[in-house]
Parts: sequence; C-alpha cells; structure tokens
Amino acid sequence: MSEHLPLVSVGVLGAGTVGSQVIRLIGEHATDLSARSGARIEVTSVLVRSLDAQRDVEIDPALLTTDPDTAINGKDLVIELIGGIEPARTFVMQALTQGITVVTGNKALLAAHGPELYEAAAANGADLYYEAAVAGAVPVVYGLRESLVGDKMMRVQGIVNGTTNFILDSMASKGMSYADALAQAQALGFAEADPTADVEGLDAAAKCAILASLAFHTRVSINDVSVEGITSLSAEDMAEAAESGHTIKLLAIAERRIDGEGTEGVSVRVHPALVPNTHPLASVDGAFNAIVIEGESAGRLMFYGQGAGGAPTASAVLSDVVAAAHHRAYGGHAPRESVYADLPICDHGSVRTRYRVRLHVADNVGVLAEVAGIFAAQGVSLDSVNQRPSSGEGEAVLTVTTHDASEADMTAVIEALIQASVVREIASTIRMEGE
Amino acid sequence: MSEHLPLVSVGVLGAGTVGSQVIRLIGEHATDLSARSGARIEVTSVLVRSLDAQRDVEIDPALLTTDPDTAINGKDLVIELIGGIEPARTFVMQALTQGITVVTGNKALLAAHGPELYEAAAANGADLYYEAAVAGAVPVVYGLRESLVGDKMMRVQGIVNGTTNFILDSMASKGMSYADALAQAQALGFAEADPTADVEGLDAAAKCAILASLAFHTRVSINDVSVEGITSLSAEDMAEAAESGHTIKLLAIAERRIDGEGTEGVSVRVHPALVPNTHPLASVDGAFNAIVIEGESAGRLMFYGQGAGGAPTASAVLSDVVAAAHHRAYGGHAPRESVYADLPICDHGSVRTRYRVRLHVADNVGVLAEVAGIFAAQGVSLDSVNQRPSSGEGEAVLTVTTHDASEADMTAVIEALIQASVVREIASTIRMEGE
Repeated sequence: MSEHLPLVSVGVLGAGTVGSQVIRLIGEHATDLSARSGARIEVTSVLVRSLDAQRDVEIDPALLTTDPDTAINGKDLVIELIGGIEPARTFVMQALTQGITVVTGNKALLAAHGPELYEAAAANGADLYYEAAVAGAVPVVYGLRESLVGDKMMRVQGIVNGTTNFILDSMASKGMSYADALAQAQALGFAEADPTADVEGLDAAAKCAILASLAFHTRVSINDVSVEGITSLSAEDMAEAAESGHTIKLLAIAERRIDGEGTEGVSVRVHPALVPNTHPLASVDGAFNAIVIEGESAGRLMFYGQGAGGAPTASAVLSDVVAAAHHRAYGGHAPRESVYADLPICDHGSVRTRYRVRLHVADNVGVLAEVAGIFAAQGVSLDSVNQRPSSGEGEAVLTVTTHDASEADMTAVIEALIQASVVREIASTIRMEGE
Repeated sequence: MSEHLPLVSVGVLGAGTVGSQVIRLIGEHATDLSARSGARIEVTSVLVRSLDAQRDVEIDPALLTTDPDTAINGKDLVIELIGGIEPARTFVMQALTQGITVVTGNKALLAAHGPELYEAAAANGADLYYEAAVAGAVPVVYGLRESLVGDKMMRVQGIVNGTTNFILDSMASKGMSYADALAQAQALGFAEADPTADVEGLDAAAKCAILASLAFHTRVSINDVSVEGITSLSAEDMAEAAESGHTIKLLAIAERRIDGEGTEGVSVRVHPALVPNTHPLASVDGAFNAIVIEGESAGRLMFYGQGAGGAPTASAVLSDVVAAAHHRAYGGHAPRESVYADLPICDHGSVRTRYRVRLHVADNVGVLAEVAGIFAAQGVSLDSVNQRPSSGEGEAVLTVTTHDASEADMTAVIEALIQASVVREIASTIRMEGE
C-alpha cells in the first residue's frame, strides 16, 4: 500500500537493548510509520560487532554486517546506538559529511562533540536528532528545542539518571548502605558492572550539558558542568533527610544566573541535593526520570516518564525517525544548533545555594559558638542549627543549615572546620534545592 | 541588528488577557525571537472590539483596529485569541484561504471545525498551530503531534480544566458545597460569571477531542465526546472519596479500546472519577493541568504545568509563533491533519470502567442481598460492599464498588435500583479510574 511512497533507507549502528527494539518497531509498525512520515522507512543494514551474538529480537541475518561502510554509506538515515565517544563519533561524522541525517541516543558524544556534529550536519544539508539522549521516552529535547522555543528559560532541574535514583531510593526506603544498594542495583541489572559513569554523575552531567545548551541557546560541554556523584552518601544522610521532610536526589541543574552587575550567565551542575518532600521531584522513584523546566512566562512545567530501557528509549528514537524521514522525503529540517545567546558559564565557586552540614563535635560548652563563628567568618549566615547527642563518647552531632552561600565561601568554611579542634568529623555537606 | 532578516507581519485578533501578553512578549523579546526564528516578527495590527478599552498591557494605539480586514488581509501570520466559534471561525478561514498561517488558542473552534480549518490550511499552503488550545503552557499538542509521533498511543488521560479542578479542590480540602466552592472560584476570578462551559465539562470535552484526534490519528469532534460535569458532586462525595484513599477529579480520557472481536476503537469521555491518591493525577491541585500519556513503547509519561492564565498561555502561543515564522521565512510546514487511522468512536454504552455507587437504603434484614441481586441481574460483579449507619431514621448507607462494567449495564442497574422499594436514594454514582 505504501509502495509509491519515497523510500528512506536506514542503517542502524548497534543492535543492543535499544537498537534491537528500534529494529523490531520499525518492522511491526511499518504501516503507521509510513502514514505518519509519508515515507517508506526500511532498515537496510545493521552494524554489529559479531554476526552470531545472542539478541533480544530476531533480526534478518541478511541485514547484519560488521563493516561500518556497508551500514552507513549511501543511506538516507543512520541511527547510532553504539554509545561512547569512539568509534561512534567517527561513524556519525562519516554519515553527516555525506549529508546523511543522524538519529542518535549518544549523550556522551553530544556533550563532548555536539558543535562539531551540528556543524557537519549544517554544512552537508543533513539533520541531527537526539531525543533519546536525555531521559529516554520523556520528550524533553523536543520540549526545549521546539515546544518551548518562544519562552525565556530560567531553570532546568531534573532527575536524569535512573541508576542513581534507584540506588538512592533503596538507601532511603530500606536503610541500605551505598555499597549494598549499588550491589543490589547491579544484581538487578539497573547498574553496570563498572558503575562509574552513573554513580560519579558523569552520565547526568552529559545530559545536563545538552539540556543547558538547548535551554539557554549557548554552547555547553560536559567540561563546563560541575559534577559530584553519590558515592559519599550514607544511610545516615538519608535517614536525617527523611527526618527533616526531605529526600536526597541526584539533580542535574542548569540555570540562568544574574550576578551583582546584572550580567547573565549559566550555572550547570550535577550534585546530590536535599529536596523537600513536597517538591514534585522528591516523589520520582525507581528508574523514572523527571525534568522541571521553569520558563519566564510558562512558569514551572514538569515532564515525567521512563528514563531508560529498550522500548521507552526506542520510542524516542522512532519519533525522531518519523520526523527525519518526513524531512528527507519532503524537505524541511530539524532545528540547527542555536547558540546565539552565548552566555558565559558561571564560575562554580560563585554559585550560591543553601547547604546542610553535619558535624561530629566535642560535647563541650562553647562548641556551638565556635562553629557558628567559623561560618560567620566567611560571611555564611545560618538558617538553623540542631544539636543532638551522638553515639560517640563525649560527642554531639551538630546539623547546620545555611542560607544561600557561594561554593567558594563554603569551601573555606569546610577547611576552617577541619582545622577546628572541637570538630571531630565532617560527616556530610549537602546542598539544598527546590525550597 | 536583525534588519536584514525577512519580516513576518503579524495580525493579532483579540487583546484580552492572553492577547495583550502575547503582544508584550513579542515586543520585549524581539531580539531573542528573531534569533530563534530567523525572522523579524512584528505585530502590525491588533483587532479589538473597542479602541478605548482598558488593557492589561499598553499597546501602541496606531496598531489597534476594529476592522477585521485590516488585521488579517496581507499578513504573514494571524494569531487568533478571540475564542468561541463566531466570528473566530470566519476570521480564521479568511486568513487560511489567503494562505496566511494561523496560530490559535481556540479549543472550541478546533473541536467543532478542526477538519475544515486543516483543509483550508493545506489547500492554501498555510499552517495551523494550536499549542495554546490545550493545557496552557504545557506542550502536550507538540507532544502528541511531534515528539511522540513514533509511538503507538494507548491512552491520554488528564486534568485539562483548571476551574473545575480548583472547585473540586476547595470542596475536598475545605468541605465546601459545590455551590459555595463555585461562588468562591467566581469571586477569585477562577470561574466565569456564566460557568457552564467549565462546570458542565464542555471546555474539557473540546480539549479531549483535540487530544484524541492527535493521539489516534482519527477525526474526533466535540460531539463524539461523552460528557458529564461536576455540578452534581457533593461535599459528602469528596469526604467519602478521601476516606477510601481517593480524590475526585474531572478527567478527560481518550483511550484505544479493543472489543471482543479484536476491533480497535477510541473511547472519548469527560467525567468526574475517583482517582487513587497514589496516582500522579490525584495530587494535581489548584489551577494546574496535567496529562498522562501512555504509549505502547514509551510507557506512562506525565506533562504538568499551568493550564491557563495570560503569561503561560502566551508562552505556548509564542512557541507556535517562532515555528510558524521560521517556516514562513525558510519553507517547511507544521504537521498536516493526520487522520489516516480513522478508528471508530466507541459507543459510550459499551465503555467499561469500575463504578462506586452510594445508596441510602432501608436498614432491614435482606437489603444487602436484594441490592446485590440487582447488580448480579445485569451481570455487574461487585468488588466490595460497605454498609454503615445513616443519620436517617431506620436507614443505612451502602457503598458498592463494582468491577469493570459497561455504562449500559450500569444504567440498567441504576434504573432497577430506583424501582427497588428498599432503596430510598441513590446518593451518587461515580466512575473509578487509574487503579
């Protein structure tokens, strides 16, 4: 029935969890995808590492190839689902320089080499789509790149890494240690054998850079993002957060900041934060992702959904494929890189947030005054101080919550606390967001 | 700086709450909007009813006109923010037949005459944008029309009318009667002097029709939507909902249904429903809107934000304006009407949901058996029955929760209950969703 429609020949690079679902869905929903794109979308080649590997979905063996040239050259559309920088970057550039549109889910590649890819696409009349790179099925790339393009974005703040969210959830709900929660996530397949990219916040940082670029029309690379992972969080941190009506989440934050002289800049950072339980991000659990976008006119919007997994991520890829196929067949383009605003990236030390610091201190008269004095000396004003007995001999636990303070001032406070003889241990320092 | 860019001359029809914000934002953000669209977007005419009316925003008097031809003819883009069917329909058709792209926030017009407008747009090379027609700043039209176009939609379910949500909130949280809550909403400006379109569910029904059309690639008009408003809900209904861990929300539901023979159809309906407090829609309060979209691959997604108000709705309009201006200047089009799937609209009587019925019955031996027998006679099976004393003499309150039952069967049950001598009053019948 769709034989008369123009053919869009697709090369798929990678047939893993997402790739195999994409190939299955393009086959199963061929009629629908044709009706929606006005093109016959056909997978004509699938690049794999090994021709005989076990796959989630049966793929016609005639499509499989281990030769990148076969999978890329002469296609109308290449879907890159290999991940990582190389050889993905070489393959994507090979496609774009031939004028072949690329759909990718590769956040690391985009966050490190986005401008180069955009330029190659524009120079050769190709398009670059990457809905699947951030938050799986949640259409936040479309949201920022198209649906909200008429508004002035003030802040994008979200939970964009399901693995760490799952680990934090387990620690909070079951009182597990970080190590146990990680081991459980690995056993259940929610965390990789090498969990570094997730738990150190690097995956979230890549997504943060992509979201910041789109929201603020400014080039933001992963190197611009200040990153702190979840590895130093303890079950005690989680318990204390719960006591004060908070939940600890790993947040990716990109926000417009205006300094004392009225100069605008962009702060981009990934770190764990205490979020009040009443905040919409506090109740996002398990492997779900959620992004809160604040527009000057729109106010606060939230997008929520499955952030990973074969089918949800494939859903995002397929929407890009429909748009890309339509443009291949009938003209028109995806939005080009929009970096006209070219805002400066804020120095991380200057970014101001609230902090909560938990200290183990000697249980002596005058300790409180001494600790308070250390904060005051750096100009950090306190919102509240809570002292309670500790299990340690002659020791108390002091929880200090600050008003907005710069990271630089807080670093100086922490250094002074380390020197103070009354302070036995700095158990944790954690930012507060969303109040 | 943008003098060399192509000019997109804009006629704005209506300078009310939304229109005046749109005009303000196009002026204030001219540089940004130019950079994003590649065009110089300029309001060159504003159609108003009276030249001397008080407005929220100061508008250059030279732009104001009471003559539709002046505001429409020869423009590149017309923004229709008058609302209602006529004269909005005449004006929009006048623009589209001249090949002028239209951005509108008019849900009533689209839900009644969408196909006619789409056809006029396609026939004359114009585009039709309407992000602002559903859920204010929440980009759900983009979501369904573009961002999720590669997935098979199973269900769209949402709170799309802030007025009724505010009224239901007041009833639930303050134990107010419907009449008092409505009066309060009117006093606060959240409800119109004539609240019919909101409280009878007609506004939500128009939005439901628009969302269903997009989700299911099928023409759905407001006349296809089964509508029940909130006017018969009582404070007692709200209290009882809270007791069982539910919240009553006015839901717009569009879902794919498969009948016994495997035939697909679309059910479109607006009605109050008991939603479990754990469901994401239960906690949407005040004038906020939220839409839960379930895709076959994407799973459950939620979009949340401000559903009304001048600035949030203007944000949606402006995003459409940027896209429209870009297309006017550089080619390309908004998606055309997509109705290829042409699914049948389900007969409302056949749609199956769970129900909860609250009855005042005579407090006699055998009443429970008689009532249960009436349900059984129509093939409606019960999930739970709760009996408690009533304030009435010799009376008990019986709350019956059913398993899935068709509306037709439930109508027969209700008729039989009315006839039953043991039943003194049917206090409420309400559907249950989201379990």
